[in-house]
Amino acid sequence: MTTMPGFAGETLGRFVAESRWEDIDTALRHQAKRALLNFIGTAIGGARHPSVDRVAAVLAPFSGPASLTLFGRGERLDAMAAAVVNCIAGNHLDYDDTHLKTVIHPTATVAPPVLALAEERGLPGAAALHAFILGVEVACRLGNAVSPGHYARGNHITATCGVFGAAAACGKLLGLSAAEIWSALGIAASQSSGVVENLAGEAKNVGVGNAARNGILAALLAQRGYSAEPAAIDGKLGWARARGDEFRAEEITGGLGERWELASISYKPYPCGIVFHAVIDACLDLRRRMELAPDAIAAITVRGDQLLLDRGNRAVRTERDARISIHHSAAVALLRGRAGVREFEAAAVADPATAALRRKVRAELDAAIPAGGAAVTVETSDGRREAVRVDHARGSAERPLSDRDLEAKFRDNAALAGALARADAQIAALWAIEEAPSLGPLLRAFGADAG
Amino acid sequence: MTTMPGFAGETLGRFVAESRWEDIDTALRHQAKRALLNFIGTAIGGARHPSVDRVAAVLAPFSGPASLTLFGRGERLDAMAAAVVNCIAGNHLDYDDTHLKTVIHPTATVAPPVLALAEERGLPGAAALHAFILGVEVACRLGNAVSPGHYARGNHITATCGVFGAAAACGKLLGLSAAEIWSALGIAASQSSGVVENLAGEAKNVGVGNAARNGILAALLAQRGYSAEPAAIDGKLGWARARGDEFRAEEITGGLGERWELASISYKPYPCGIVFHAVIDACLDLRRRMELAPDAIAAITVRGDQLLLDRGNRAVRTERDARISIHHSAAVALLRGRAGVREFEAAAVADPATAALRRKVRAELDAAIPAGGAAVTVETSDGRREAVRVDHARGSAERPLSDRDLEAKFRDNAALAGALARADAQIAALWAIEEAPSLGPLLRAFGADAG
Repeated sequence: MTTMPGFAGETLGRFVAESRWEDIDTALRHQAKRALLNFIGTAIGGARHPSVDRVAAVLAPFSGPASLTLFGRGERLDAMAAAVVNCIAGNHLDYDDTHLKTVIHPTATVAPPVLALAEERGLPGAAALHAFILGVEVACRLGNAVSPGHYARGNHITATCGVFGAAAACGKLLGLSAAEIWSALGIAASQSSGVVENLAGEAKNVGVGNAARNGILAALLAQRGYSAEPAAIDGKLGWARARGDEFRAEEITGGLGERWELASISYKPYPCGIVFHAVIDACLDLRRRMELAPDAIAAITVRGDQLLLDRGNRAVRTERDARISIHHSAAVALLRGRAGVREFEAAAVADPATAALRRKVRAELDAAIPAGGAAVTVETSDGRREAVRVDHARGSAERPLSDRDLEAKFRDNAALAGALARADAQIAALWAIEEAPSLGPLLRAFGADAG
Repeated sequence: MTTMPGFAGETLGRFVAESRWEDIDTALRHQAKRALLNFIGTAIGGARHPSVDRVAAVLAPFSGPASLTLFGRGERLDAMAAAVVNCIAGNHLDYDDTHLKTVIHPTATVAPPVLALAEERGLPGAAALHAFILGVEVACRLGNAVSPGHYARGNHITATCGVFGAAAACGKLLGLSAAEIWSALGIAASQSSGVVENLAGEAKNVGVGNAARNGILAALLAQRGYSAEPAAIDGKLGWARARGDEFRAEEITGGLGERWELASISYKPYPCGIVFHAVIDACLDLRRRMELAPDAIAAITVRGDQLLLDRGNRAVRTERDARISIHHSAAVALLRGRAGVREFEAAAVADPATAALRRKVRAELDAAIPAGGAAVTVETSDGRREAVRVDHARGSAERPLSDRDLEAKFRDNAALAGALARADAQIAALWAIEEAPSLGPLLRAFGADAG
């Protein structure tokens, strides 16, 4: 398509309204299915966390009669409340996907409202996939247009940009016109919120969850003719500048409809900070190679760039510390041969054998190792010594997770939820989502109460 | 009380939790009743506007079973949805109150969630008044701390600060501890939204309405132990700086508990921009004094400062134009002898006699007239000529509306809603709200379906 002059909301509204499913190629459709497989699995794995329980309990009395699926949970709520709970379940551990250029977790705010609306209305899988792809595009392009200043100043970009993606996607799913989606995006501008300062606490969830919900609200209001101002996003007193940022319009228009942001999102193999993934890869490799018994390990040296050391060289007291610790990441990988959700939970943090191994880890700066890489050397008490260097971790742009990797991650998450028996059928249903005539029956199989 | 060192949320949380009703003096309690009388009347008058209808229709399917009052409307919704609808009904015409120092409309976001929660739980009127007073204090002090940069950059301060006031007030009403209210304020930081660019459109309502709703959400989550970061408001990556602004902590601590922001809010006698109020006052005075027949008027000259001319010297095509027009304000006051809601509606804008009179108005700069003032000269076709200068308009800090004025405004609004017969009883109930043992029965009398 050609790019339009005028306002950002106008350009994006027209792009979303005019996009046709037949213009979305097979590879991009497949990326969308991968994103849903990854996100829904992560949500199932995270669904019973107390932070999710509390939000669900608070919202239940404020939910209408519609009875929609909460991934991995037994109760059902209306579309707005389901969007909040599913969003938080999949995002609260930061184990979901990442648009590396902006650090947006795009699926968290876009998929839950789209799937809830599609389930409520019995819409086809292809319509939901299409809306989802467009919503991710809108969120990430707006993120590109205000990065890096917007996030660096304290705006939690997953939430602040996510609400636009959710609004665009819901608008597309409801069949809104270009002008109506433009209005929905303008309404989203008045709902954009979230601060980085809160990232360490549960309050983060509220900003992200509201972004998912408020996309539905924006689209439903726009459908009824609710108006917004043309320059709500990029005007003199609009969204971008209210956050103190410049807005680079070329990030909206450049290659719109040709280059897709969804194609570059990455998936985490481990539920910890991305910079620790290379450390874990190296340790898993050494464990296999050296056939290590834990008490045979005398010393572990992890080398990496300044960012790795800045982020990860720390005392470990809590789950959150563990997810951003070089020492804990290396210790669990060497000790347990895996680094899944359980390996970063409180029990693993407190485990004496893990703590003992953490104490044997030393972190060292090595400027020769590229960002995102790490080198690990293990010495055993009987004098063996081996080293592995990983420049590109699993899940990075250079080594994306395969479909099989994503299926294995889904099964891990299902096992955490005690629902492994249903995982293969759920995985098959998601790979076939494009052919589903209605998402109602398909999605109902993802609640904890489904047969 | 003494002020606390530490974080803004900590200081405000402790202040709100420790405040005792017996420490609130009679004058301040009376101010709170005036604010509620003004706001609820405005909400009744604005309740049937299509912008309110649409929001209520969109939210109805997403409302839980609780059945709470919508001022001036027939249907009932749960507390969160009622807070949104009542907030928008009272605020969408900007006829509600104003904290002049920040331009926050404080009652719109604070009163609706407090009243809805109090109605839902059958709480006493005094508890709701107390929570309301504290919520207004929190919203306006945070506004003071980030003004004028926050608003000047495009953050719609009524919404962005209102959510903190709503959270604090709901937290107080629920009896939360200081630490819990601190958390509620931190959660509010992740929900603060609203852009000035949208002020001319309906999208404005969504930002303001969400602020009211999300105060309830913040307080209920905090009650269940949901955490936020200590510096969510004033930290390096917290709310104030994410909006690009400095935060003046002394605006939070200075005279806290001694000087009250509620004492300085003002009420509008006319539903148009405050700078036009002096024009209307002068025209109403001239009409009485000269016993003017409309077709006897040959020329009208309005003189004022640069702000008045910048804002109001414009062509009038829409209701919104009319509410910020020197010409329309003068014309309706001279022609109809009043300037209420009807005088700024579409029918009045299109009325030929009003349009003819608008054309006779000339606006002139007069630097000698103080901000907020105006001088009007009327010349008649038979050669009479009189001038009136108003330095302080009705409703300004120097000439606050009396209790009787507020009652008359309430009746005007009730008449617009076709509910004048119930107005006197409603006014009496609001003046007696402090003694009400439960707000359930009291508030139910404010719906359109009540007897």
